[in-house]
Amino acid sequence: MISADQALDAILEAAAPLEPRELELIEALGRTLAEDVAADVDLPAAANSAVDGYAVIAADSAGAAERPVRLRLLERVAAGSVPTQTVVRGTASKVLTGAVIPPGADAMVMVEHSEESAGAVAIRREARPGDFIRAAGEELRAGEIALRRGRVLRPTELGLLASVGRSRVRAIPPPRVAILVTGDELIEPDQPLAPGKVRNSNLPTLVALVAEAGAMPLALEVGRDRRDQLAALIARGLEQADVLLTTGGVSMGDFDLIQHLLPEAGVDTRFHGVNIKPGKPLFFGARGRKLAFGLPGNPVSAVVCFEVFVRPALRRLMGIEPALRPTTSARLETAIKKADGKRHFLRVTLRCDGGELLARPTGPQGSHLISSVARADGLLIFPEAARELGAGERAEVLPLPHAPMSMPDNAG
Amino acid sequence: MISADQALDAILEAAAPLEPRELELIEALGRTLAEDVAADVDLPAAANSAVDGYAVIAADSAGAAERPVRLRLLERVAAGSVPTQTVVRGTASKVLTGAVIPPGADAMVMVEHSEESAGAVAIRREARPGDFIRAAGEELRAGEIALRRGRVLRPTELGLLASVGRSRVRAIPPPRVAILVTGDELIEPDQPLAPGKVRNSNLPTLVALVAEAGAMPLALEVGRDRRDQLAALIARGLEQADVLLTTGGVSMGDFDLIQHLLPEAGVDTRFHGVNIKPGKPLFFGARGRKLAFGLPGNPVSAVVCFEVFVRPALRRLMGIEPALRPTTSARLETAIKKADGKRHFLRVTLRCDGGELLARPTGPQGSHLISSVARADGLLIFPEAARELGAGERAEVLPLPHAPMSMPDNAG
Repeated sequence: MISADQALDAILEAAAPLEPRELELIEALGRTLAEDVAADVDLPAAANSAVDGYAVIAADSAGAAERPVRLRLLERVAAGSVPTQTVVRGTASKVLTGAVIPPGADAMVMVEHSEESAGAVAIRREARPGDFIRAAGEELRAGEIALRRGRVLRPTELGLLASVGRSRVRAIPPPRVAILVTGDELIEPDQPLAPGKVRNSNLPTLVALVAEAGAMPLALEVGRDRRDQLAALIARGLEQADVLLTTGGVSMGDFDLIQHLLPEAGVDTRFHGVNIKPGKPLFFGARGRKLAFGLPGNPVSAVVCFEVFVRPALRRLMGIEPALRPTTSARLETAIKKADGKRHFLRVTLRCDGGELLARPTGPQGSHLISSVARADGLLIFPEAARELGAGERAEVLPLPHAPMSMPDNAG
Repeated sequence: MISADQALDAILEAAAPLEPRELELIEALGRTLAEDVAADVDLPAAANSAVDGYAVIAADSAGAAERPVRLRLLERVAAGSVPTQTVVRGTASKVLTGAVIPPGADAMVMVEHSEESAGAVAIRREARPGDFIRAAGEELRAGEIALRRGRVLRPTELGLLASVGRSRVRAIPPPRVAILVTGDELIEPDQPLAPGKVRNSNLPTLVALVAEAGAMPLALEVGRDRRDQLAALIARGLEQADVLLTTGGVSMGDFDLIQHLLPEAGVDTRFHGVNIKPGKPLFFGARGRKLAFGLPGNPVSAVVCFEVFVRPALRRLMGIEPALRPTTSARLETAIKKADGKRHFLRVTLRCDGGELLARPTGPQGSHLISSVARADGLLIFPEAARELGAGERAEVLPLPHAPMSMPDNAG
């Protein structure tokens, strides 16, 4: 059985960024830029005013602080219009915030430091050349790179792209992720609970995890433990999506068909079984550039495998690097033990005390206890070789993405 | 002019959680639960197996480690079906993971520790009562609260809700946020840049900020500096949305109409002007339960005001507490100075070094430099009374939501 690290290596070797596409600006939110974007013009395109005020020749303002200087008013320039007159000694033009500085002027005097009346303005402050003027090209020169390939686009980056004239950009589109939850025992949450049945909790959990990760979930119908129906659903998932996630059917049970049906559908098995707990039966394979994960059916195992193995694959497909989210280090509040040589992922809550991060297991760690993971802020990594970690010892923790931003990472 | 703290108080006094609604489970992702949800049955509903294996009477397995014990096989119980036979001394039933434990049995022996042949199974491990059995009600008892009102629903919480029979829940719906960007100077990114014009970068930025905050953006057409058109757009925004955001038109410029038109539309002015930089001209008011923010038109000022003032309001509307995201503390890598008594929000990058968070300004801080905020991980809070902070001094930082999870917060 391979180790967690070997499993991750195999996954990241098989996963490659998806083909970039032209996306509308707002569609590109959260996506990875697939081109270097240069400014099409200087930014700002022309020198403009940082304030509402009067464009003057600074030399005219000498002594204005002691005794107001009166200048003849030429015109008003609002944002969006262009100045038509040249400011010469003894004159000024009113210029509103963002509007173009008239030729001749070399400084702005704020409206608060002036008084306008009958075709003239009295200014009460001395101005120095350049005051309150944003120079053309101050932010970016035409042709200069505004954003580089590989940048994950956040709201302000969309604004920057708009500023340099882009309404569309080449970016990596969201991966489509088909989700096939299997099991004869599953009933929908709104159906009455018959003996032997359990509610299908994996489907909403995985749909939500995929969506929150920035990918596009595609929920397939629930797979029953019948070969023909499962084979058809697997074929559909591999056809329509970039990634197929199945749950259940990967352990040693007699009805565990997925491990046979995925290879029959052309999926090349990369591994089946990882030396971890929970999540040991995890299956992973690839068909061309498409990836298939056979997740265990236990809700906790499915979530742990998603966080540890599927999320890095999705990040790689989306061009987000590093594909492995940084782990952090936390001090254990209670001692923990284990009896085997597997890598365990314990659900822990995290809290900050005196600038130090403290971790505490969420309680019983059974892989059916979905509330244990619903309460968790992170997965504590209990190494293969360790059998006991004492209270006060440090351990590595993979924060869950929704955890409060309270964790110094190990990456720095 | 009021302080930043007074402004926040006024905003949070006016903002109240929206009326809860019944939401489909997947719609409830990221929403705040507005009811206590109890388990409808025991979870698990019946004792079931944690493994694929054989349900036995533990006493039958005495000595099995030395010498395999042979038991007569009664039946196979798969997940989803129910046992039909009672296990008695000398017998066993095969039970797959998640399937119900047959009456009479008190332990499971893993399939790995057994060998099946011709109607019998030989077990090679001693079992103790309870081994690999998940007891009924182990996770939750019928009637016990699974999730409490006020909980923000993440993927695993949706799974837990499904497990207790909920396909719909009462939760707080996303606020609708109308966005009215104003200015005669604005042209769309794909239009050629005429003299005096600038690209409309605020609209994509704000639409994306609102969407990432978990609210529903509603982009109004661009408002030109004409009273009738702006008044109509303001009326529409206040009609259709819970929050109206405008940009531009709130400073002292002759064409700054928003500050007059918002009150004319029935918005009760709570403040206009805050002792901060950037963002000083910020306007805030309310019409009934609807909120209106007049953001400055400078891209950086708009983003800073969104992060500092609008986001807490949206969190309060969504029932997410604390409404104020926790700040963190960072050590300055370079000295900073200011000449006024305003609270400044400096765009900084953050990095972790030796477990300590270090902050460095992103460069020139002009409020038109959108790249300064696109590069930022946080807003450093430079207090009103301070004039200088030296390299190595600690300062309070509001992390931007997309910043890497690398920050110890001040809340713990």
